[in-house]
Amino acid sequence: MSDIIEKLQQIVGPAQVLSAKQVAQRATHFWNPSPMVARALVKPATVDQISDVLRTCFEHGQSVVTHGGVTGLADGEKSTSDDIVLSLERLNQIESVDAVNRTMTVQAGCVLQSIHEAANDCNLLYGVDLGARGSCTIGGNISTNAGGLSVLRYGMTRDQILGLEVVLADGTVITALNSLIKNNTGYDLKQLFIGSEGTLGVVTRAVLKLRPATPTRNTAIVAFNTFEQVTETLALVSRELNANLNAFEIIWNDFYRLSTNPDITGTSRAPLTRDYSAYAIIESRGASVESDKQQFQQTLEELLEKDLIADAVIAQSETEQKDIWQIRENVDLSLRHSPLFVYDISLPVNHMEAYVDEIRTNTKKHWPDAVVHAYGHLADCNLHISIAPKPENFIRDTQQQPIRIQAFNEEESKWYETVNRIVFEPLASIGGSISAEHGIGLLKKKYLHYCVSDEEIAAMRLLKKSLDPKGILNPGKILDME
Amino acid sequence: MSDIIEKLQQIVGPAQVLSAKQVAQRATHFWNPSPMVARALVKPATVDQISDVLRTCFEHGQSVVTHGGVTGLADGEKSTSDDIVLSLERLNQIESVDAVNRTMTVQAGCVLQSIHEAANDCNLLYGVDLGARGSCTIGGNISTNAGGLSVLRYGMTRDQILGLEVVLADGTVITALNSLIKNNTGYDLKQLFIGSEGTLGVVTRAVLKLRPATPTRNTAIVAFNTFEQVTETLALVSRELNANLNAFEIIWNDFYRLSTNPDITGTSRAPLTRDYSAYAIIESRGASVESDKQQFQQTLEELLEKDLIADAVIAQSETEQKDIWQIRENVDLSLRHSPLFVYDISLPVNHMEAYVDEIRTNTKKHWPDAVVHAYGHLADCNLHISIAPKPENFIRDTQQQPIRIQAFNEEESKWYETVNRIVFEPLASIGGSISAEHGIGLLKKKYLHYCVSDEEIAAMRLLKKSLDPKGILNPGKILDME
Repeated sequence: MSDIIEKLQQIVGPAQVLSAKQVAQRATHFWNPSPMVARALVKPATVDQISDVLRTCFEHGQSVVTHGGVTGLADGEKSTSDDIVLSLERLNQIESVDAVNRTMTVQAGCVLQSIHEAANDCNLLYGVDLGARGSCTIGGNISTNAGGLSVLRYGMTRDQILGLEVVLADGTVITALNSLIKNNTGYDLKQLFIGSEGTLGVVTRAVLKLRPATPTRNTAIVAFNTFEQVTETLALVSRELNANLNAFEIIWNDFYRLSTNPDITGTSRAPLTRDYSAYAIIESRGASVESDKQQFQQTLEELLEKDLIADAVIAQSETEQKDIWQIRENVDLSLRHSPLFVYDISLPVNHMEAYVDEIRTNTKKHWPDAVVHAYGHLADCNLHISIAPKPENFIRDTQQQPIRIQAFNEEESKWYETVNRIVFEPLASIGGSISAEHGIGLLKKKYLHYCVSDEEIAAMRLLKKSLDPKGILNPGKILDME
Repeated sequence: MSDIIEKLQQIVGPAQVLSAKQVAQRATHFWNPSPMVARALVKPATVDQISDVLRTCFEHGQSVVTHGGVTGLADGEKSTSDDIVLSLERLNQIESVDAVNRTMTVQAGCVLQSIHEAANDCNLLYGVDLGARGSCTIGGNISTNAGGLSVLRYGMTRDQILGLEVVLADGTVITALNSLIKNNTGYDLKQLFIGSEGTLGVVTRAVLKLRPATPTRNTAIVAFNTFEQVTETLALVSRELNANLNAFEIIWNDFYRLSTNPDITGTSRAPLTRDYSAYAIIESRGASVESDKQQFQQTLEELLEKDLIADAVIAQSETEQKDIWQIRENVDLSLRHSPLFVYDISLPVNHMEAYVDEIRTNTKKHWPDAVVHAYGHLADCNLHISIAPKPENFIRDTQQQPIRIQAFNEEESKWYETVNRIVFEPLASIGGSISAEHGIGLLKKKYLHYCVSDEEIAAMRLLKKSLDPKGILNPGKILDME
């Protein structure tokens, strides 16, 4: 047994170090069942143990890949047979909730859903929610600056973080568990570690900002004839629903048709006919049953009167709300092609229509029957796009044939390169981003230059070299060090 | 003439370089009329010129102090006769407003008030407002992460910044004028420069996030018998007014008495009697005249029914709103003592009452008649405190005798040290901050250890050394380099 593995066993106990063989019993990823690869996987139980593990790895020049819920979508958590995986699965406690100051202190391995539940118990809420809530951890959310469903109202994960504890590459523990909204005392170090995908330090604990609960909920789905109506509608509802506006999700016609297709979904009905060019789900949340409802209805009436929307359905019950949201949440339907290339991009709202048309046209030049689905958080400038070059390869039964957004063969990999260029290239000139909320990881590293300048990359390298001089933390992710 | 001054003249033109003698015609600071001191003051007109100025200074190891509106309250802008002052007064343009995407691109020397006016013209608003709005610049706001009157709803300056252009110490220009809410593409470099008080780079341009305007406004002043009522009231209005809650300002009895004293103010009336232990101004803002008013009145009624407030006055007109806010804004009345020591601290709400009592008691041990005034942004955990050891030195006419929160004589400087310890020391053990929104500058540098650990300071030094290896940018501010 190698020297370093023995030392790691002394730190965390032999049972908490999995060998390469044991690691292979885990799946690589939520979307990829192939065996996980690593030199070993270490499961510390305390921040002190994490500090000792990192100090040991630093001394040995041993690379470390930190794992949370392993639900990322940019291969940021991918490990090789040379890496030690540092899993934070045993640091999963909510340490305290302060209902008066509206803060919560959590360990990094805490699952997002348990944070929502603990906030809810105090009649408060945590501002970031996303599909992987049952598996993803707050440490992973912080390291990728996760976005999700409520960014429009509450911002990204960065906007929820008041304090952070981080262990640096050499084992130094920086405990900066600030719980104050306002604290201007020197450089705000936590900002460096939020969104840096585990390449600058290991997040171990965090103080989260909580918000007052929003018990009332008004939901509608509306239809548009033109994209111009979409942007004007967003402006009007932002003004009229104001701070209560909680969601404005756009769905292009193709995805609406798919998501309301009874042949595929079995149960879904279409609240609005399938002929409009686009649809949006609009939701307001607040605390005053009567006045919120009144405000919502008046706003919808104004949209109809001004011909900004072609039609609308307001949900009259919780079931109807769920049905409307189901149309947006049938995301897995758009993933049922093989192979499938998925994107999470961001661009100014006024460029969206032309952009989606452009990538549709360019994709069809290569694959005339290609399926291009677009939907997303319009008010956040964020679109999710999925492109299937071969629509005939539709997966009817995901139990038999799993969804495949990774592990492409040689030919498919070439297609992927082509589609990447189709999707990413136009973003450079319109101030778009190749990654809105999923991060860069390994997958998008070579396209980073489309939206980040040479000077920015040089500054990022400088920071990486300063904080992780031996390059042991999640090496090769986001940037190469040359 | 020295070599470097000549080079600077070549870059910006001779008329745009003020000599030490010309610099002395400017006041040191908004609060300090004594002559400004500097080797020279340079007024570049473009980012390229700033880059050339910094490259030249870097080559010569010449220290540079960047100036915006010079309204800071921590001596962050203080210069010596060795420093070149880099004034951004000529970069004062609003470059563009994008009403669809709700962003504004501005030059760093732009005055805050002009940003408000430009946003207002598009039926939008900019989320940070503060007393110095007519003089302070956005570059200074960014460099100090300014807070102000709307943090409760919109956050600090950091939360308004989408993109930034920065010039590094060696003249490298990092143009990262992102305009997207969501953009996770590598390290978020702009976060480093926000709040670092000009010590890591010079902010030259910014993309600001704008918000929908809030035309409706409901304002009340309420009175409390106990501090427990204050925290319970904050919880209730946060829940009920929810996202519309725009301000919750606390005023302790002493300051209320002063601010409504007709002998001093001449005109102010007291909307509520002067006997309650504390008062709060509560304001909601939104877009629906009827439903917002209804929600506000119901919330106030609930507070009265539950005995959480002792009395309340709701403003019935814009004039009455102004009168209520005037009580809070009579801040200069609390500054009319000589000498006067002012503080901007932050601490968890549940510690506030005991903390204010403690510093009052401890101050009176030294000066039995000392005046201690407290007021501030309770919902942000932020209190402003002013302490006058000798209340008999009250300034009746500020034209004759200017307000003096700087330039203390030897005896007063000793008093200042004593009061600093009284105010700052108790914050360490309760998770408080010695600077909520004004920054560290020179004034609070030696007290930084009360709320920042040795590991944090070491990491800050590491960043400073990496980004400004010769230490030319605003040297000695925030940190000493040992």
